Amino acid sequence: MADFIIDWERAARTGVSEAVMCSGKSPAQIAAIAAEAAKHGRRLLFTRLDEERFRLLEPAARDAMAFDPLSRTAILGGSVELRASGIGIVCAGTSDLPVAREAARTLEFNGLECALISDVGVAGLWRLTARLEDIRAFSLVIAVAGMEGALFSVVAGLVAAPVIAVPTSVGYGAAEEGRTALNSALASCAPGLVAVNIDNGFGAAAAAVKMLAARRGGA
Amino acid sequence: MADFIIDWERAARTGVSEAVMCSGKSPAQIAAIAAEAAKHGRRLLFTRLDEERFRLLEPAARDAMAFDPLSRTAILGGSVELRASGIGIVCAGTSDLPVAREAARTLEFNGLECALISDVGVAGLWRLTARLEDIRAFSLVIAVAGMEGALFSVVAGLVAAPVIAVPTSVGYGAAEEGRTALNSALASCAPGLVAVNIDNGFGAAAAAVKMLAARRGGA
Amino acid sequence: MADFIIDWERAARTGVSEAVMCSGKSPAQIAAIAAEAAKHGRRLLFTRLDEERFRLLEPAARDAMAFDPLSRTAILGGSVELRASGIGIVCAGTSDLPVAREAARTLEFNGLECALISDVGVAGLWRLTARLEDIRAFSLVIAVAGMEGALFSVVAGLVAAPVIAVPTSVGYGAAEEGRTALNSALASCAPGLVAVNIDNGFGAAAAAVKMLAARRGGA
Amino acid sequence: MADFIIDWERAARTGVSEAVMCSGKSPAQIAAIAAEAAKHGRRLLFTRLDEERFRLLEPAARDAMAFDPLSRTAILGGSVELRASGIGIVCAGTSDLPVAREAARTLEFNGLECALISDVGVAGLWRLTARLEDIRAFSLVIAVAGMEGALFSVVAGLVAAPVIAVPTSVGYGAAEEGRTALNSALASCAPGLVAVNIDNGFGAAAAAVKMLAARRGGA
Amino acid sequence: MADFIIDWERAARTGVSEAVMCSGKSPAQIAAIAAEAAKHGRRLLFTRLDEERFRLLEPAARDAMAFDPLSRTAILGGSVELRASGIGIVCAGTSDLPVAREAARTLEFNGLECALISDVGVAGLWRLTARLEDIRAFSLVIAVAGMEGALFSVVAGLVAAPVIAVPTSVGYGAAEEGRTALNSALASCAPGLVAVNIDNGFGAAAAAVKMLAARRGGA
Amino acid sequence: MADFIIDWERAARTGVSEAVMCSGKSPAQIAAIAAEAAKHGRRLLFTRLDEERFRLLEPAARDAMAFDPLSRTAILGGSVELRASGIGIVCAGTSDLPVAREAARTLEFNGLECALISDVGVAGLWRLTARLEDIRAFSLVIAVAGMEGALFSVVAGLVAAPVIAVPTSVGYGAAEEGRTALNSALASCAPGLVAVNIDNGFGAAAAAVKMLAARRGGA
Amino acid sequence: MADFIIDWERAARTGVSEAVMCSGKSPAQIAAIAAEAAKHGRRLLFTRLDEERFRLLEPAARDAMAFDPLSRTAILGGSVELRASGIGIVCAGTSDLPVAREAARTLEFNGLECALISDVGVAGLWRLTARLEDIRAFSLVIAVAGMEGALFSVVAGLVAAPVIAVPTSVGYGAAEEGRTALNSALASCAPGLVAVNIDNGFGAAAAAVKMLAARRGGA
Amino acid sequence: MADFIIDWERAARTGVSEAVMCSGKSPAQIAAIAAEAAKHGRRLLFTRLDEERFRLLEPAARDAMAFDPLSRTAILGGSVELRASGIGIVCAGTSDLPVAREAARTLEFNGLECALISDVGVAGLWRLTARLEDIRAFSLVIAVAGMEGALFSVVAGLVAAPVIAVPTSVGYGAAEEGRTALNSALASCAPGLVAVNIDNGFGAAAAAVKMLAARRGGA
Repeated sequence: MADFIIDWERAARTGVSEAVMCSGKSPAQIAAIAAEAAKHGRRLLFTRLDEERFRLLEPAARDAMAFDPLSRTAILGGSVELRASGIGIVCAGTSDLPVAREAARTLEFNGLECALISDVGVAGLWRLTARLEDIRAFSLVIAVAGMEGALFSVVAGLVAAPVIAVPTSVGYGAAEEGRTALNSALASCAPGLVAVNIDNGFGAAAAAVKMLAARRGGA
Repeated sequence: MADFIIDWERAARTGVSEAVMCSGKSPAQIAAIAAEAAKHGRRLLFTRLDEERFRLLEPAARDAMAFDPLSRTAILGGSVELRASGIGIVCAGTSDLPVAREAARTLEFNGLECALISDVGVAGLWRLTARLEDIRAFSLVIAVAGMEGALFSVVAGLVAAPVIAVPTSVGYGAAEEGRTALNSALASCAPGLVAVNIDNGFGAAAAAVKMLAARRGGA
Repeated sequence: MADFIIDWERAARTGVSEAVMCSGKSPAQIAAIAAEAAKHGRRLLFTRLDEERFRLLEPAARDAMAFDPLSRTAILGGSVELRASGIGIVCAGTSDLPVAREAARTLEFNGLECALISDVGVAGLWRLTARLEDIRAFSLVIAVAGMEGALFSVVAGLVAAPVIAVPTSVGYGAAEEGRTALNSALASCAPGLVAVNIDNGFGAAAAAVKMLAARRGGA
Repeated sequence: MADFIIDWERAARTGVSEAVMCSGKSPAQIAAIAAEAAKHGRRLLFTRLDEERFRLLEPAARDAMAFDPLSRTAILGGSVELRASGIGIVCAGTSDLPVAREAARTLEFNGLECALISDVGVAGLWRLTARLEDIRAFSLVIAVAGMEGALFSVVAGLVAAPVIAVPTSVGYGAAEEGRTALNSALASCAPGLVAVNIDNGFGAAAAAVKMLAARRGGA
Repeated sequence: MADFIIDWERAARTGVSEAVMCSGKSPAQIAAIAAEAAKHGRRLLFTRLDEERFRLLEPAARDAMAFDPLSRTAILGGSVELRASGIGIVCAGTSDLPVAREAARTLEFNGLECALISDVGVAGLWRLTARLEDIRAFSLVIAVAGMEGALFSVVAGLVAAPVIAVPTSVGYGAAEEGRTALNSALASCAPGLVAVNIDNGFGAAAAAVKMLAARRGGA
Repeated sequence: MADFIIDWERAARTGVSEAVMCSGKSPAQIAAIAAEAAKHGRRLLFTRLDEERFRLLEPAARDAMAFDPLSRTAILGGSVELRASGIGIVCAGTSDLPVAREAARTLEFNGLECALISDVGVAGLWRLTARLEDIRAFSLVIAVAGMEGALFSVVAGLVAAPVIAVPTSVGYGAAEEGRTALNSALASCAPGLVAVNIDNGFGAAAAAVKMLAARRGGA
Repeated sequence: MADFIIDWERAARTGVSEAVMCSGKSPAQIAAIAAEAAKHGRRLLFTRLDEERFRLLEPAARDAMAFDPLSRTAILGGSVELRASGIGIVCAGTSDLPVAREAARTLEFNGLECALISDVGVAGLWRLTARLEDIRAFSLVIAVAGMEGALFSVVAGLVAAPVIAVPTSVGYGAAEEGRTALNSALASCAPGLVAVNIDNGFGAAAAAVKMLAARRGGA
Repeated sequence: MADFIIDWERAARTGVSEAVMCSGKSPAQIAAIAAEAAKHGRRLLFTRLDEERFRLLEPAARDAMAFDPLSRTAILGGSVELRASGIGIVCAGTSDLPVAREAARTLEFNGLECALISDVGVAGLWRLTARLEDIRAFSLVIAVAGMEGALFSVVAGLVAAPVIAVPTSVGYGAAEEGRTALNSALASCAPGLVAVNIDNGFGAAAAAVKMLAARRGGA
């Protein structure tokens, strides 16, 4: 009997498809879950699956997945057609890219196209202002930044769209493994700024999926 | 010359009207800001204005404001017609009501009607499940809870709408002045859950306003 | 002369048998303790004994132990007949299973049978409510959860039995290596909820053993 | 319409009667709750009701309550006959007495008699050992201590009964407002030790009530 | 005999005149220090002297001082002619003004003129960019901000001058009494950014005085 | 297309040349950046490049760099003539040398000569006082210390030059990975003391470069 | 019956007389303890007794005590002849004096004379070196300092006597209410440095009393 | 030229011989220091030298040292005759032995004999009381304990000798890597208890050496 219960009804209930966080799972466990999903003909998103563990999966499991080493995600069950979402991901530095792409891959898995604008950290403000018109065109912004997380306040103060802050653990010392960027997002007085957990690109995308679903069905 | 600059263009730029946080401001400063707004014929929201300080305002300032002692908010410049928003505020206990109502008043100031369901903390789960049908009908949920903040996970796992968690400083000891409820919102694996600062009812409502504006203009 | 003193009278004095926590002990030290126990014809529970170190023990020591890799426990000296205890272990997610099984194995070592219900985290509340009748039948509940630990409040509010919360270090970022789940257990207003240290499945079971012993001898 | 919902079925559901924590409630709110209870002919326990606020209640409310200033508790609706419980409260110093008595009063409200042994902090170990025979006779111990909380380990290592630790905020500096005593209870290797929140005498007693109920109905 | 030793040689040794931090000092102690300074014909700066305590000083002491209630500073011994310094103070919000002015008053006491630009917090970036030319003209910037302290990174990335960050305790919750703004200054990757203690306007100005002295004598 | 944008205009804008922090970057990424710089004929400083990763670079990249294993820095593009700067680096113990030398190498990369005085921790005060005359001759001091960071206060109280404190993560237990030394720098009442992040030798040097540039152009 | 048990045998058992910490005790409780001591003809030390509460004691209690407002201590039962102890108290700033004098008064109560050297904080090192000969003559040093606590390392590195560090809560922001000074004492590599709790002048003196007693009887 | 300066005069100045903490030093650096000491005919103590790094030293260096793997210490230059010291080391559990033996080895290096009593943690109080007569005979106690550190309070309350607490990093979760045991030592009200840093057996012994030296020369 399986050691796990996949919540196949999650999408119906909450609007976001079930995903499997692989940290702490063995290659055997991951392969078993993949097999279970394949058996039911379901698509499945695997997150926090680093390349080393991916290489340890059986060839059959590996072949059935579209793996992206940078974001450490794998999509099982093929791609779906993407529709325009208006979501833009804005990313402070290249070290924040793995988290930003985890968000992008989660949106993609859920059928949503998004734009990714990277390397616009505010310590070189011209990089951000050069892209401001693009950013203002988004109807929902996912902002990804570590260190001091100043990007969150600046962006949220410039755009009409709601901004979901994803603090990252990039930095050292007083960056406190992402806590400083997280606190910056929370302590900001910029309006319309909300936050998810440190390095939680998946969570930001899941919230964006729900917000878009609400829009389509909504008030 | 005035000691302050009111950001009258904020609504145009970000979709959320300027508000004045009164903590740390003297009655004279508050009255001056109110006079400035009155002069320009502008509406203004005052937050964190406790009753004691409100009573110290000059009668003219007091008379021009609609004051709500529970939420410690005052609205200057009269009410606007409210339109349906689909936003529901869900509140764990009576001690969380001041923060929940700060959110409600902010929505009201921005012309949005909302429903407030209180006393549905999960330590008595029947109180929540009894109202579940109502809660599932909301297109956006603001959840307000202190102590251990278990409400956030439970609600976000039950509804399709996105959920904005507002942790409160209600509790003692290991509640760590709201930090535990905040961490609970962030550490949860329930999809579609985002958080704002401790006791920040205003911030949750401002984010909700932006999300609704995006919906109306949006994808 | 031995470097350690096994507290053979502990069971008589406190009602809980001595156990050996292996973290920080070398295979040689563990084998020596096992030999000492074998010499006295005593049973002994080894905890936090990971598979790698178990494999380094001498064959004789390994053969005398019933090893369980998931819970990282080994029981030396054979099994005893189990009697019904009324204790149920309720576990939020599969990542919490090692800790949950450490509790189960400790009960087993002390001659107590228990039920283990896993994968009932409250982010998918239906999984918990589906098992509620079973859970309400327990006369003592050990609840095991990491991340935000919302399970503790929900369960303690639903059952008449006392609930021992075992927070786990499962999660990242704001989960703060188990501190958030621990604080959630402590800050909850659900009645009858007590807590043990992070990842301390052994401690929860030891407390349960004492509670049952008090019942049989008690008021 | 009332602003609050008293959970009159809590006793039936969880075995512990509803109580009202008064911190943050105004005298008017407390009086309203008392009137509501009186109307339904219910008994009610009020906690964290300091003398100053009690004096501000209307005479009718005051007269209906049995107030204890040291524990800051009031019992509405008269006393019930107490039955022997086997519960003993062991208290480190006189500064911990308010919390110890909050536990005692909660037991009394629930119809349970208990013994209270105070001033047995382990810095003068003879005070504890002089009372050891009495303490060993208890079938459940509630231990109350602040500062470094060494009492918890010592008592739990000496008795067969389970021990519920109540850390208090007594102390300064490195006592960290109770966090050190709490961590001491959790980090101890003494078997059968569980903990509740800092200063939570009520919670310890509520857990004890549930444990006794389980015994009477139990395995 | 006096209870205190004023370090009259401090200016000679370190280039910064002695100042007296009044927090924790009684009006009598402050008056005695003022009298001692007057006797030696010395100028003296008093910081953290709130208006209430200032009003309790003897009239003679009060009359000898130039008191500024906003910055809670008093200068004894008259003003000196100010010379141009090139130092600019940039301040995020009006709540940060007391700290900003403590810096300005300290510079003034040391004979240095400075410019103060307030209300340029980055949540409304246009306020900052509107003043950018002025700010770029400074040869040393003191930046004062609370909450998330995003101002520090943005300014340091835009100007060639070194930037001294003064985090303030303005904010609540995740602002952690200034710790978040402080960490933001330290964790930033903007070049040339250094920090002083929370609310330490005096310290920033003292460092600026030393930097200018080094320039005049320097390489 | 390149995955990164080198901010070649940074020196012009802020007075400090762009540098590349290598922690978290793969050898391939580092080599690509080096190639890009070489193509543009630019000099570049690499920091946090440990010897192991340096050895994994392609020979061409390695040959183009002047690598210093102690400071984990590499300079690409050759050396420039150094001019006297008046900057002195003062270092508490040999364990702090890697950070001290990161500062020295950054100054060197920016064309500034500096003196480095090591092993003058204040627990053996004679070591510091023996070098005091030299230290007092500096026009700007970078002080590097871990553990309790007492060096910062002592030096800043003895010299007229401004002092930039670089706390290091040297130490254990209560040293809290550099936080204690950092707090010591910030909490000191010694005038003219400013701080950068833990282990941030680069940041201290960058601030020093800006301070010197301001001197040469300045007031 | 008395609510408290005075440990009259403490001096015999541990070499340090019982003392009464008054924080949290009412004037009535303090007076009762004083009366009990008077009845037994015992001397008693009261600590943390602020002037306001002392004034509320009955005249009889007040008259029997020698009260010192600065240290907030009172000695009941008259003075004893003091003998030379070789103990010196070294104090960083005037704000640390209350704690330093609590130590001095405790020594005095135990019959030991001591010297008190104040205002020798290391930010003005000459103040310390000017008194170094005196300090080196002590056979045991109690060092009292707040803020960054650099005094502890400097003194312990200069003297052959053991040094007991008493960190104080003097300072703000990064001083973290004494935690930084405490950590500085603990993280220092100066030999022979030990620490007591923040603001615990009594504890330092009690340890000194034990150390001296051990000397007289000792090896 | 050597990269380090050995403080050969330390013993003369402070009464404690120089020691070398090896953490962070390479085998080459350690060997160089050993050679330098050998050249001067000096004895030297190496601490935190784990077996793996010791094995990497050149045979000549290894042969000149008396290495103890448990305490990770090596003594260079031969042993000295030990004299009775009256110092006793009391150790809670076997996991604390490495730290306890670091203290013992440091005393031995300084020519002092000591007794080591292990496995007397207070969770099994009988183990401590069985050895109480021995412990009371010591004129100075070094107490070593991790987890909740209850041993410190219990011992300090039972003996007339001063007690130096050495908290260890033994434990997990709420033990907070030694911080809980450290706080327990500091927050205790047991008289005559002082503390050193977590795992700092060397520091406790160094303080003991100074205390004994003061006794022999002292008052």
